[in-house]
Amino acid sequence: MKSPPYAGFYTGRRVLITGGLGFIGSNLARRLVELGAKIILVDSLVPDYGGNWFNIEGIRDAVTLNVADIRDRYAISYLVQGQDIIFNLAGQLSHVDSMRDPYTDLEINCTSQLSLLEACRHNNPHVKLIYASTRQVYGKPRYLPVDEEHLAWPTDVNGINKLAGERYHLVYSQVYGIRACSLRLTNTYGPRQLVRHSRQGFIGWFVRQALDGEEIQLYGDGSQLRDMTYIDDAVEAFLLAGASEAVNGSIFNLGGCRPISLKEILETLLRLTGTGSYRIVPFPEGRRAIDIGSFYATYDRIHQTLGWEPRIDIEVGLRRMVDFYRAHRVHYWPQPSECPK
Amino acid sequence: MKSPPYAGFYTGRRVLITGGLGFIGSNLARRLVELGAKIILVDSLVPDYGGNWFNIEGIRDAVTLNVADIRDRYAISYLVQGQDIIFNLAGQLSHVDSMRDPYTDLEINCTSQLSLLEACRHNNPHVKLIYASTRQVYGKPRYLPVDEEHLAWPTDVNGINKLAGERYHLVYSQVYGIRACSLRLTNTYGPRQLVRHSRQGFIGWFVRQALDGEEIQLYGDGSQLRDMTYIDDAVEAFLLAGASEAVNGSIFNLGGCRPISLKEILETLLRLTGTGSYRIVPFPEGRRAIDIGSFYATYDRIHQTLGWEPRIDIEVGLRRMVDFYRAHRVHYWPQPSECPK
Repeated sequence: MKSPPYAGFYTGRRVLITGGLGFIGSNLARRLVELGAKIILVDSLVPDYGGNWFNIEGIRDAVTLNVADIRDRYAISYLVQGQDIIFNLAGQLSHVDSMRDPYTDLEINCTSQLSLLEACRHNNPHVKLIYASTRQVYGKPRYLPVDEEHLAWPTDVNGINKLAGERYHLVYSQVYGIRACSLRLTNTYGPRQLVRHSRQGFIGWFVRQALDGEEIQLYGDGSQLRDMTYIDDAVEAFLLAGASEAVNGSIFNLGGCRPISLKEILETLLRLTGTGSYRIVPFPEGRRAIDIGSFYATYDRIHQTLGWEPRIDIEVGLRRMVDFYRAHRVHYWPQPSECPK
Repeated sequence: MKSPPYAGFYTGRRVLITGGLGFIGSNLARRLVELGAKIILVDSLVPDYGGNWFNIEGIRDAVTLNVADIRDRYAISYLVQGQDIIFNLAGQLSHVDSMRDPYTDLEINCTSQLSLLEACRHNNPHVKLIYASTRQVYGKPRYLPVDEEHLAWPTDVNGINKLAGERYHLVYSQVYGIRACSLRLTNTYGPRQLVRHSRQGFIGWFVRQALDGEEIQLYGDGSQLRDMTYIDDAVEAFLLAGASEAVNGSIFNLGGCRPISLKEILETLLRLTGTGSYRIVPFPEGRRAIDIGSFYATYDRIHQTLGWEPRIDIEVGLRRMVDFYRAHRVHYWPQPSECPK
């Protein structure tokens, strides 16, 4: 395997990751440790969010952890100083939570993004900034696969706020010359994903239920298509973007190897676990209204610009994910009592 | 002239207008008084914004004024109760101010819109809600005329936040059944527009300078096209939308009679005033980066849905505007000293 275009780039570079104890942040940090970067992880450790100490097991001594909420304007204003690259991954990710409490979603996904950008503008205008956006900004697709020219028409408050947060980055790039870009992630999955509750994407929850031998409820008819990006592929996209000047001021879709139905994902998963089952049920009220049907994106733009493409097929990715949670489940969800039911 | 489709509709209806002492709010209120509505005007009277007591001169006894900031969550939560129709016009409108102080823009154009919608959802879910959006959400046009399918790609913080505010309305329509729609206004002009400073659109500022016999600075080369909507036409669109169920959950462009260059607008204006002059100057730093070049929209969608079209040509509109400010300038900007210079 040839060495990546960023080989050597991260050695000795000062890298800050917001949401650094979360799913993507911690996996990115692990790679950056290998690459020799000087890493600060910023995380709020809000109990219901993705931050998890165990996510940096094995690299704790190789990174600096700074517990701070992205809403803490003063801490952020200080922490951005002197950094070479910021991977800005902190966010409120739950669609359902954003409808229940739109203000918190707004504070994290809008106000705090402005704070971070203002901090960079005033204290570190030459920083390089990579924002983690989401396919959710597109809403219900008007055509498939979705490209970056597709209308942004979010179906929930979370999608609206993530879109605003992304656009702040691009306006600060355009107006102030901050070297910012945005990656629109699709369904990212893999080890270290939050699985404590079901409100941050379906895949982690499915894995947990399968491993616990439970019956999984699949909403709709299971034919909805998704493109799944394995975490290592997503991390690779961040590393490529962080080392490139060609991405500044732009947005890029990520994607998966192929569109795959929720039903096929589930059946693959259950074959791998050998435990659990599933049942198709109607959408609960409130979730149907913000459901988007099938979704998959084209990643042509990032492929052309950075040579990125997904490499890990769903079967391989799910197997690694299952192996990880089978070994470490005690760190990711409360364990059922040992007593017989 | 045949009677409008809303004839009789507003008689006795309880109507709340946020930003009710502002340019559009007050002109709308004047028509609603004629139509027999029960009107509450909510306005913050923030000194630098558009609210102006003189705007309701002549109808003061026919409306109820409630001074409250749209950011005052508790006041808004109370005031929406029992209303039949809310015209939601309160906003921070200055592109330049939004770059200087993005947090205030966010509070007014995002947080407060969420508060209003949450208030309606909990306290008045059957209300009818018309949101005043802006062409600014489109950013720099990719094609002309711009239709509602055009990408929303705002070039400043104000455009981003106005877009988020609009989309909250549509998500609350989709998810909670609030009967909300959005009108995307282009350059609206006419009597009662803020002209105290130059940060809320060029036209009012031009009129003031012309009447004061000053030299007007025109940025760029003056060839930029705009579509100008005269205030009475904009008010008509709000009245039509407020009385229609066909608009719920949708967005609609307004537009002008024809695209017209800034230079032609200025020359028409100077011919009408007989005072003032103009000079073409380069864009100042900071304004160029958020300038959008030529812009004009198609209003086909609202024409097809509501039969709306602009009726007042620029020459007629500007004459009315000039006559108004000539008669009432003392209420709209500080007068030059009587002493010789």
